[in-house]
Amino acid sequence: MRIVVLAGGIGGARFLRGLKRAVPDADITVIGNTGDDIHLFGLKVCPDLDTVMYTLGGGINEEQGWGRADETFHLKEELSAYGVGPEWFGLGDRDFATHIVRTQMLGAGYPLSAVTEALCDRWKPGVRLLPMSDDRVETHVAVELDGERKAIHFQEYWVRLRASVPAEAVVPVGAEQAKPAPGVLEAIAGADVVLFPPSNPVVSVGTILAVPGIREAIADAGVPVVGLSPIVGDAPVRGMADKVLAAVGVESTAAAVAEHYGSGLLDGWLVDTVDAAAVERVEAAGIRCRAVPLMMTDLEATTRMAREALALAEEVRGA
Amino acid sequence: MRIVVLAGGIGGARFLRGLKRAVPDADITVIGNTGDDIHLFGLKVCPDLDTVMYTLGGGINEEQGWGRADETFHLKEELSAYGVGPEWFGLGDRDFATHIVRTQMLGAGYPLSAVTEALCDRWKPGVRLLPMSDDRVETHVAVELDGERKAIHFQEYWVRLRASVPAEAVVPVGAEQAKPAPGVLEAIAGADVVLFPPSNPVVSVGTILAVPGIREAIADAGVPVVGLSPIVGDAPVRGMADKVLAAVGVESTAAAVAEHYGSGLLDGWLVDTVDAAAVERVEAAGIRCRAVPLMMTDLEATTRMAREALALAEEVRGA
Repeated sequence: MRIVVLAGGIGGARFLRGLKRAVPDADITVIGNTGDDIHLFGLKVCPDLDTVMYTLGGGINEEQGWGRADETFHLKEELSAYGVGPEWFGLGDRDFATHIVRTQMLGAGYPLSAVTEALCDRWKPGVRLLPMSDDRVETHVAVELDGERKAIHFQEYWVRLRASVPAEAVVPVGAEQAKPAPGVLEAIAGADVVLFPPSNPVVSVGTILAVPGIREAIADAGVPVVGLSPIVGDAPVRGMADKVLAAVGVESTAAAVAEHYGSGLLDGWLVDTVDAAAVERVEAAGIRCRAVPLMMTDLEATTRMAREALALAEEVRGA
Repeated sequence: MRIVVLAGGIGGARFLRGLKRAVPDADITVIGNTGDDIHLFGLKVCPDLDTVMYTLGGGINEEQGWGRADETFHLKEELSAYGVGPEWFGLGDRDFATHIVRTQMLGAGYPLSAVTEALCDRWKPGVRLLPMSDDRVETHVAVELDGERKAIHFQEYWVRLRASVPAEAVVPVGAEQAKPAPGVLEAIAGADVVLFPPSNPVVSVGTILAVPGIREAIADAGVPVVGLSPIVGDAPVRGMADKVLAAVGVESTAAAVAEHYGSGLLDGWLVDTVDAAAVERVEAAGIRCRAVPLMMTDLEATTRMAREALALAEEVRGA
């Protein structure tokens, strides 16, 4: 079975761990969000790609969900001592190595997809990890700060401000000119099923879909497209998805997110059992819907979620 | 008193600590060797400048003589895990920060002299530290390896090979085209005394003197120029100076090094008490010479060495 998964960071990475366990023999291609990539200290940092790579490769800080296990922060302390920031982005000593290798390879002319493959040669995540694009796409968030309206980098909004001010708009700068990375459209066209894990529908999955050609390829693939709601009981399971959903005029409910994707893209949608009442509304929008437990409390629960998503895909296929 | 010191790495840095203690109110300008600078992992590393900065700024690893105190090597371990080398150059996590800041500033267009000043803003070494040049100079060593004659970077010769093969030639590539960094010639012209610490006469002091204009400025300054022998009892006090002295046809003795500098440049020379027999030969070459203890065993001994060098300078001046 060939499965394509559109993944952001923590939610996507943890779901993938369950998916690999649910179908160990599946051929899984992950299309990773690069809209939250950021240049820090002259280095190219790809938080979502790295979270997937570290999580599946056994190097993740489990409690935190991002960054490396057994990490130290001496380099960052020293940068602060030099007065060099930003201080709000937590890069650890081990993590820095990934960004140094990536930056060197990019500087030598390799595209991000080739660099990601080289990094995965070490981590062996057990999936094929592709950046959504080799072109630079950078998600900016329009906010009002100190009485002034300005666009800031997504990471500044998310990490520095902790989404504490309303997001007036979310713009994946560069997405319109970006091309899908080599292998992305081919993977989608050859997939048996496409999954949207419980990742942020705006700044993770939404950014991937903003790269011209990807949304169309998924809609045209003629295979089941099934998503899992990142909203449980009208609130994000983790993160602050509600803040960016508001920016695109979508209410923070499991049903509204399904409608936001739309029946032209999505065939099936899983909501949590606490949102069972949403099933009817989602199905009325032309999207097959089931209510199942959606809390990724441990690998067992996550594996069950992946099985439910694949079961719903088969149900869609048989319909 | 305005003192100019031409410094390499460990020997120069330790001598400077004694000099500062000997004359706390002196205005000391250090002209640092940059011929052993190297690009590693996309970063610009300046080992000699950093050794001076860390030693005088209180950040040095005292036992080792280079690198940072309280250091960890997690980043480097990770680079090795990625298969990215060289593994033979020991960059620690704290040390990396210096190279990242430097590389970012150079990338932004600042010359090395301005970058060094910015780094020293943090370390406050208590001297004015100038790179010998803002232009790239890279010391290469001609060796025969595996039956093939080739030129390798000085660090590869020194650190990876530990000078285990004969150096057939030592070439400061780029030196002929290099200009002294801003402030270098002015500092020399305004000095009351110029000192050569017990640094490597070929790859440290020699490289600085290879930048057109610096040797001439010292010779023309009309002030005492006094050096301290890095060779004690026919062997280098530390390091492998004998290997590179052989490459330039100079025997590894305190007297031969003084003659190598020559009376056109050098006015006074300190040899260790074990080399007292060399005094006559050095003086016969037109260079005033004294035999005093030259082992920098502790700060007290180093301070006495600095005082002896300054005393010899006054003797020269009065002559």
